Amino acid sequence: MLQFWYEFASTYSYVAAMRVEQECARAGVTVEYRPFLLGPIFNELLGIKDSPFNVQPVRGRYMWRDLERLCAKHGLPWRRPSVFPRHSVLAARVALGAGPAIGPVTRAIFAANFGDDLDISDPDVLRKLVESAGGNGEGAVALAQTAGIKARLRANTAEAQRIGVFGAPDFVVGGELFFGQDRLEDAIAWAQRT
Amino acid sequence: MLQFWYEFASTYSYVAAMRVEQECARAGVTVEYRPFLLGPIFNELLGIKDSPFNVQPVRGRYMWRDLERLCAKHGLPWRRPSVFPRHSVLAARVALGAGPAIGPVTRAIFAANFGDDLDISDPDVLRKLVESAGGNGEGAVALAQTAGIKARLRANTAEAQRIGVFGAPDFVVGGELFFGQDRLEDAIAWAQRT
Repeated sequence: MLQFWYEFASTYSYVAAMRVEQECARAGVTVEYRPFLLGPIFNELLGIKDSPFNVQPVRGRYMWRDLERLCAKHGLPWRRPSVFPRHSVLAARVALGAGPAIGPVTRAIFAANFGDDLDISDPDVLRKLVESAGGNGEGAVALAQTAGIKARLRANTAEAQRIGVFGAPDFVVGGELFFGQDRLEDAIAWAQRT
Repeated sequence: MLQFWYEFASTYSYVAAMRVEQECARAGVTVEYRPFLLGPIFNELLGIKDSPFNVQPVRGRYMWRDLERLCAKHGLPWRRPSVFPRHSVLAARVALGAGPAIGPVTRAIFAANFGDDLDISDPDVLRKLVESAGGNGEGAVALAQTAGIKARLRANTAEAQRIGVFGAPDFVVGGELFFGQDRLEDAIAWAQRT
């Protein structure tokens, strides 16, 4: 089993999200989806309330070019979002509210943000995305407003902090943390070994 | 042709340095060795005079564990250095002073720092490492003190800043920057395509 930790505003999480299910299926490894929020973590570790890619323009320039290349490499749609980072709290809650559809819903939300430049903080957009992914749109958006789902997202973020997450995406296998989309293969190999 | 940009104090540069020549040779790509200094870059971009892995302990804890795993994966010797980051100015100058032996000398210096916990800021250590790598130890250490070599290292660091380097290692192919040891394969594929 491989835990996939991701943040809907994160560009590199997009690349990982579009690949993780397929690569794990090929390797016979199951995926557990763990959306969380990077905002509180960046705030605590770096004292910033924005993406490090905005705060450090040199890193930002590299990242935008790198995303073009990575999406071309993996055959993923790519459009630089007109708002970055997008508010991702509701999207993360909706994903948690989608139940067994969390995998397809996660991919639909990421593709909307980074392939179609849609506002994934808009409940109407999210409702349609859940439907398009085969889930219950009304139900997931309604669940997203409940105390139970809000608590689950807070718990995910707290657990991410506890296990040493400092960015996204991450893969966790048997207590081993792998940071970055380019470590998916290492994480899968670890899962196969253990 | 692939430019390999590296810093002798950088743990991830070690992993890349031990692999770059062999992986490029296998792909029919030549390597240009470009040692540079991260210190001035971190100072300018982040306002710090230490490694970000020391300044941010959460990242540091991850990095030390990750290095163990990466060295095991690639069959590289690994001993966590008792001093981190080590002063790397003289080592970088000695590598530049080693002329055509820069590849083997680079690997010998990295292996000393991260495999044997040796002080790579010590001229005697460096002299022996150059000899062990088939170079002229006395000559390289003497050249390292000259204005010409000092200027070459400053020029490398200035060029790194100009092309948008913000960490190490990096690979540059036809103007494309790839950051991180885990992107060696992407950089080689780029070199083969162009």
